[in-house]
Amino acid sequence: MTKLIKKISVPLISLIFLLNMSSAGMAETTVSAEISFIFNTLLFLICGFLVFFMACGFAMLESGMVTSKSVSVICAKNIGLISISGIMFWMFGYNLAYGIPEGGYIGKFIPWSDASAVDTGYADGSDWYFQMVFCATTVSIVSGTLAERIKLWPFFLFAAILSGILYPIVMGWQWGGGWLASIGFSDFAGSTLVHSTGGAAALAGAIILGPRLGRFTKSGVAPIKPFAASSIPLVTVGVFILWLGWFGFNGGSQLAIGTADDAIAVSTIFLNTFLAGAGGVTAAAIVTRLNFGKTDVVQMLNGCIGGLVAITAEPLMPSPLAAILIGAVGGVIVVYGTKLLFSMKIDDVVGAIPAHLFAGIWGTLAVPITNSDVSFSAQLIGVLSINIFVFVTAYIIWSLMKATIGIRLSKEGETKGTDVTETGVIAYAIRD
Amino acid sequence: MTKLIKKISVPLISLIFLLNMSSAGMAETTVSAEISFIFNTLLFLICGFLVFFMACGFAMLESGMVTSKSVSVICAKNIGLISISGIMFWMFGYNLAYGIPEGGYIGKFIPWSDASAVDTGYADGSDWYFQMVFCATTVSIVSGTLAERIKLWPFFLFAAILSGILYPIVMGWQWGGGWLASIGFSDFAGSTLVHSTGGAAALAGAIILGPRLGRFTKSGVAPIKPFAASSIPLVTVGVFILWLGWFGFNGGSQLAIGTADDAIAVSTIFLNTFLAGAGGVTAAAIVTRLNFGKTDVVQMLNGCIGGLVAITAEPLMPSPLAAILIGAVGGVIVVYGTKLLFSMKIDDVVGAIPAHLFAGIWGTLAVPITNSDVSFSAQLIGVLSINIFVFVTAYIIWSLMKATIGIRLSKEGETKGTDVTETGVIAYAIRD
Amino acid sequence: MTKLIKKISVPLISLIFLLNMSSAGMAETTVSAEISFIFNTLLFLICGFLVFFMACGFAMLESGMVTSKSVSVICAKNIGLISISGIMFWMFGYNLAYGIPEGGYIGKFIPWSDASAVDTGYADGSDWYFQMVFCATTVSIVSGTLAERIKLWPFFLFAAILSGILYPIVMGWQWGGGWLASIGFSDFAGSTLVHSTGGAAALAGAIILGPRLGRFTKSGVAPIKPFAASSIPLVTVGVFILWLGWFGFNGGSQLAIGTADDAIAVSTIFLNTFLAGAGGVTAAAIVTRLNFGKTDVVQMLNGCIGGLVAITAEPLMPSPLAAILIGAVGGVIVVYGTKLLFSMKIDDVVGAIPAHLFAGIWGTLAVPITNSDVSFSAQLIGVLSINIFVFVTAYIIWSLMKATIGIRLSKEGETKGTDVTETGVIAYAIRD
Repeated sequence: MTKLIKKISVPLISLIFLLNMSSAGMAETTVSAEISFIFNTLLFLICGFLVFFMACGFAMLESGMVTSKSVSVICAKNIGLISISGIMFWMFGYNLAYGIPEGGYIGKFIPWSDASAVDTGYADGSDWYFQMVFCATTVSIVSGTLAERIKLWPFFLFAAILSGILYPIVMGWQWGGGWLASIGFSDFAGSTLVHSTGGAAALAGAIILGPRLGRFTKSGVAPIKPFAASSIPLVTVGVFILWLGWFGFNGGSQLAIGTADDAIAVSTIFLNTFLAGAGGVTAAAIVTRLNFGKTDVVQMLNGCIGGLVAITAEPLMPSPLAAILIGAVGGVIVVYGTKLLFSMKIDDVVGAIPAHLFAGIWGTLAVPITNSDVSFSAQLIGVLSINIFVFVTAYIIWSLMKATIGIRLSKEGETKGTDVTETGVIAYAIRD
Repeated sequence: MTKLIKKISVPLISLIFLLNMSSAGMAETTVSAEISFIFNTLLFLICGFLVFFMACGFAMLESGMVTSKSVSVICAKNIGLISISGIMFWMFGYNLAYGIPEGGYIGKFIPWSDASAVDTGYADGSDWYFQMVFCATTVSIVSGTLAERIKLWPFFLFAAILSGILYPIVMGWQWGGGWLASIGFSDFAGSTLVHSTGGAAALAGAIILGPRLGRFTKSGVAPIKPFAASSIPLVTVGVFILWLGWFGFNGGSQLAIGTADDAIAVSTIFLNTFLAGAGGVTAAAIVTRLNFGKTDVVQMLNGCIGGLVAITAEPLMPSPLAAILIGAVGGVIVVYGTKLLFSMKIDDVVGAIPAHLFAGIWGTLAVPITNSDVSFSAQLIGVLSINIFVFVTAYIIWSLMKATIGIRLSKEGETKGTDVTETGVIAYAIRD
Repeated sequence: MTKLIKKISVPLISLIFLLNMSSAGMAETTVSAEISFIFNTLLFLICGFLVFFMACGFAMLESGMVTSKSVSVICAKNIGLISISGIMFWMFGYNLAYGIPEGGYIGKFIPWSDASAVDTGYADGSDWYFQMVFCATTVSIVSGTLAERIKLWPFFLFAAILSGILYPIVMGWQWGGGWLASIGFSDFAGSTLVHSTGGAAALAGAIILGPRLGRFTKSGVAPIKPFAASSIPLVTVGVFILWLGWFGFNGGSQLAIGTADDAIAVSTIFLNTFLAGAGGVTAAAIVTRLNFGKTDVVQMLNGCIGGLVAITAEPLMPSPLAAILIGAVGGVIVVYGTKLLFSMKIDDVVGAIPAHLFAGIWGTLAVPITNSDVSFSAQLIGVLSINIFVFVTAYIIWSLMKATIGIRLSKEGETKGTDVTETGVIAYAIRD
């Protein structure tokens, strides 16, 4: 999604296409720059609203996964974080990622500034919208991991920093035409830039914050009962919404649908994105059934996310079979990654770290398997540099916040539940 | 959304664009009338299905906000009202708003009647679909306020009158090219025409119907416990769906995406619509945290609606910062509007009156701030005339219904809960 | 949706349009083949993601309708079946329906194989995606009927057979240009091909599997209490999602939006699809209120599905009034079809057989009423051949599975509930 490159290449590609079609005697069928502009803008808007809706998917997934005394706060976190992230991305992030514009820095992005510039390929406002929902997705990943014991407003502060500074820096390295783009790193829609970034920030937070009271005993994991997910159907609707949104996430990252070639590419991306999710679900179902006796619906649902994260680094080049396999490995990684975190006594309430960080690493490193233009070394550099940068900076920020404003609820507050403590609104009031 | 004006202006704009582009030596890039026709129709269909889905958002928001013994009826109301509204809008409303067609009145709209008229700018059927879901949205706003004590079928009768007569009259005044359009009133996507109309009809109903049994005591509001919202995650999924739908609501009200200029405008509208919702959430979070000690998730969610309603009167002209601020004021209005209704002992179960009526007034009056072509006096005339007309006629209709068929459940029926009384289906049957 | 015919006809239609427009002196406004290609591909992708989301609608509808001890498994089934169906449709189904390609059979579909073939009218990958979600919808219909007593993995095996073999055979008869297409059978978007196919397979399964323990007593149906639906709002969100998805289901089945005529047709389809659903809801509300005393919200919701299934065989030709009436009859069929199954002691947990099989038969036989090019005899042959083929083969497959691997849970497992027995994850863990 290198915007700068794209801005130049769209008219060029149109030109090349024009020449090709002309030589075939079909000059009158060429798509004009203005029509391509409308198609590309429409792609950003449609895919953008699908990705926007992923915020709802995360809210439902997390609401269903936490215990019933921490659901209202999860809802507050999710509606709050997309609001804060969007405002921060307007105020700082977009400009930071793409380079400071003339005349100042803060909040200078004006969507209609180049209204007449049809040759840019798409409306700037539609690009902002599409990039903003990516930023918000990154922040959404963090909220579930830290549920049930983090204070609400320190979380919002971290969300503001992540969306306004950390994510835009990483985004600039690659999609802003920065140094990772220069060395040939390839991350089509953000297995690493979005998903690992969110996962690494969550991991740092989970370590600093510590596990929920009583989550781990000396002998291992506590019995599931007191930590049971409050609603499996909410987790399910969340995952379906995320899967739906992922067609926009990956499909829109083609950045153009103004030529037949782009339309074919977007179609292929939809197809591969579907199949990778399906591979993740199927693999998680088989692995849990064979290894643990029961078919774990939660792992199937998280396995879907794992499969989708894995294909996100390269959803265009794989064959259908490759997409299924890449997704299936993502699903298996989720199952065993969850066990790994248990064994390390890291309390990731919703399983976001295995699904987004671990599967994101896999997907990014797997790109060279199906795309021969990409080198494994460039992928490794990208994975290491982004994950280390995000983890270390997030670790420092969480630590500073812990030492100053405090990030964890009191024992009493946590025992009562975040809903009572933070919002005063219980989540479920059901009486027969 | 003045259809009559648009029908003329679309080809004109295309022509103007053609001339401009020609002078720039780019004649071959002009969008033809037929291609614009397809793009515009596609915009109506895509934005239309997003607005259609808002009916689901209202159903969930309201299901979550009522007590658990009134949820099934809320579901029945919401699936029923969109059905009834759509049929009434086909039978009477569309023709009433746009003028009676030749050859009769009732149900004469035939979607494919001008199949060959490419120069109208879009398919008539797509316009009907888009206008119909706006009508249904207006009716949806009413259902939540009156929950838990209104009889089901009298509500459906009111829904039929509102969708078949009242809303179309108001719609005709402005979007049918009527007197409000003539005096320069400006309401881009319906802060007043849709949201205040729904809110004013709800307010009239709430006054006639009276509060729920025991809702208000001599000293003020009853303790929250017996009136606790049944499910905060359902409220949350409802608000996310509404926010999603609002991109269609405001974006589609540009009425065209068949030129680069229109594509840029729709993009700007998406961006501002997002930021206004974000402003509403953020403002409600800050205000409740500072003033009441806890961060009220319900007010954050309703604040989002307030922000979105506020930007709806003018989502195109504001700068991003202005959009955030307009939305933020909408969010604050929701918080204090809710308190105002409490103090007046008006029982608005879901907070629709502050979010839709109050924030709608604010948004409409705020248009001149960002759009210098609009006068404050015209806005004031529009706000007063529509709200007074709707409130008074609705008040009369509710009163007549109360005096004849009755609109309120018996005390026994209300105490048992509407679900048992009206549908015989309990909403939640959850056993461990 | 006869793909083969369409592949030829799209360029032809474009040609005819070109000639017509030229004679009107508007040659420069014609839509080129490449632009039509992009529009058509976009239609498949947008409508495809709407139909994809129907899988979520089924998951929620079914989660809400089953008792609270069988919800997790319903979620596992629904996320699992779309994954398995998609993989099977890639591996076998698509090729089987459209004819075996050169160079082999299994999994040979490669989405970008004819990237340069703009004259095919749309990207092959987008067609695959759109067809695949239809296949998954067929399988989704089966899962609810058999809930609460079927074993998970035998269900998945049946899903694989249905999606990989049975549905593709039926699809090939009509949309692959097979014998039903030749005799003039007409089923625009699949009242019979998709909905009756799913319903007939579910009916065969329900008969072989038998009812839930205690569901029927000697005197008739057991009291509702122990079999009460777990969550009416989940049923409601499910039906709204299905209604939303149906715009894609029927609208996308126009297969093209690259000309003004196609855009008008898709618009008309959206309009009629809406009105038929509205007719189904309204009819079910009136019938249950008049005949049973209470307005049954579950029948209103299922009546919506019945209305939508009924219009699916011909959503383009009916007038708005005809669409309402066709849908209303569908809604009435659902109400009395449900009673019929009760009287036959066939246990259809979610009411899928009345809504999809019975209403599908009605809709398909009703096509000649509004489309004079279609004969009743061809419709009858189509309905009988497909339903008998699917019912008989499904009956044999269920019987073979019952005799070998077993399809029903043990009495103990069923009494504990499928959630505990199969996934070990309880669906709702709600504590105040």
